[in-house]
Amino acid sequence: MLVIGELINTSRKAIREAVGKKDAAYIQQVAKLEEEGGAHYLDVNCGTMVSEEVDTMEWLVNTIQKVTSLPLCIDSPSAEALEAGLKLVKAPVPLINSISAEEKRFSSVLPLIEKYQAKVIALCIEDAGMPATAEDRLRIAKGLVTRLEANGISQQDIYIDPLIKPISAGDKHGWEVLQSIKLIKEEFPKVHFACGLSNVSYSLPNRALINKLFMVQTMAYGMDCFILDPTNKEMMGALYISTALLGQDKYCMKYLKEHRKGLYS
Amino acid sequence: MLVIGELINTSRKAIREAVGKKDAAYIQQVAKLEEEGGAHYLDVNCGTMVSEEVDTMEWLVNTIQKVTSLPLCIDSPSAEALEAGLKLVKAPVPLINSISAEEKRFSSVLPLIEKYQAKVIALCIEDAGMPATAEDRLRIAKGLVTRLEANGISQQDIYIDPLIKPISAGDKHGWEVLQSIKLIKEEFPKVHFACGLSNVSYSLPNRALINKLFMVQTMAYGMDCFILDPTNKEMMGALYISTALLGQDKYCMKYLKEHRKGLYS
Repeated sequence: MLVIGELINTSRKAIREAVGKKDAAYIQQVAKLEEEGGAHYLDVNCGTMVSEEVDTMEWLVNTIQKVTSLPLCIDSPSAEALEAGLKLVKAPVPLINSISAEEKRFSSVLPLIEKYQAKVIALCIEDAGMPATAEDRLRIAKGLVTRLEANGISQQDIYIDPLIKPISAGDKHGWEVLQSIKLIKEEFPKVHFACGLSNVSYSLPNRALINKLFMVQTMAYGMDCFILDPTNKEMMGALYISTALLGQDKYCMKYLKEHRKGLYS
Repeated sequence: MLVIGELINTSRKAIREAVGKKDAAYIQQVAKLEEEGGAHYLDVNCGTMVSEEVDTMEWLVNTIQKVTSLPLCIDSPSAEALEAGLKLVKAPVPLINSISAEEKRFSSVLPLIEKYQAKVIALCIEDAGMPATAEDRLRIAKGLVTRLEANGISQQDIYIDPLIKPISAGDKHGWEVLQSIKLIKEEFPKVHFACGLSNVSYSLPNRALINKLFMVQTMAYGMDCFILDPTNKEMMGALYISTALLGQDKYCMKYLKEHRKGLYS
């Protein structure tokens, strides 16, 4: 199970302010907290900075790498901003977040995957719009994986993001995601799956709890990478317990170790 | 999603003491609390009473039915104790907990299902012992469903209990249960599934949390009946959220109603 720390994102007020003041110490503190929380990758997203996205990405990547050797997940819809980050990464195998089936995005991000020997999150979205059903997601994923493989990228380096939509906007939005994981796994058994969770609970009460239980459901179907807050002990606790329940934690050792470290206190 | 309230069980000290003192008021209070918590059935189990099981079953069933019209889940490995309860039930469609593929138990419980027009929990256990794999459970379930159907009991009235074993005793014990639900559903699409959850967490820390997340996982695979404590708000909250995430709660109305009632406060 792969955890991508989501905290370094300028859509978060504290990060935006730290970036504004070039407060490297604060960014570095957040990076260290994410690492200590159990993140395997750190997401770096400054998409809200618009005209300064490239400069900010460079500053963030340099700033973060001074305190951690964790690999980075460079996160932007813009190929220019992605490359600004990728060209500076030191730790091996960065993750690109993300390519999609939108033609312009696909063709601009594809060269970066090969150039920087990266893994990639592939978002189930196309020029015609967002997917509705599991079958839509399978069709889009099929196009993405087929084209990526044709360009030499192996299934193991692809993380399909099925695109999570709020259950408040459609009863079946959660269920369709679960079914899409099942269908895509049948077709491409070696691909991974990644997602952020917060969309699923949009406009409902108890969002953290809903997100957590949706994580548990998607894990049961094969989702194996989450973009989340690794300093959230309840979330990480649920992740370790789910992993053990799914038979992916020999003798429950990882769970028991985290428990002894006080994860659930 | 069906909830069977588990509290009226003489393996619980407070119930055992109330039974010893013939404290009807306490038993009735528990029954009302389970009903208010959201139970659809009330389990009645006095298996620890050994030589007094029949008398105790009669007293419990009569006592409970004075304060609730919920249907009962009559719970015993003994056909005699089952019948002692079943012959007194007033609410329609009692549930028998349980039949199994053990020959003696099967042949003694089978006549009660027809005589009392009951639904039945069918436990995946046979004379040779407990199942290890999902395939074992499929094989035992296949035998049970086939024989029950041959005796006129329809799939819709059968609740397969796949038999939950502790993950502390075997890494794959949780995973095999999930796979067994999948396999049995493919073979018998109309059967239901039922289980108690507490075995899964035996000997591990944070048992309540582990049980809750295993409930969420099994629901994602199709488990639709749980024997649990309906006065546990965290458990019931997780059940309502999971139901909504699985697309079984139109407009999230049930979840929002329970939320407004303060379920998560």
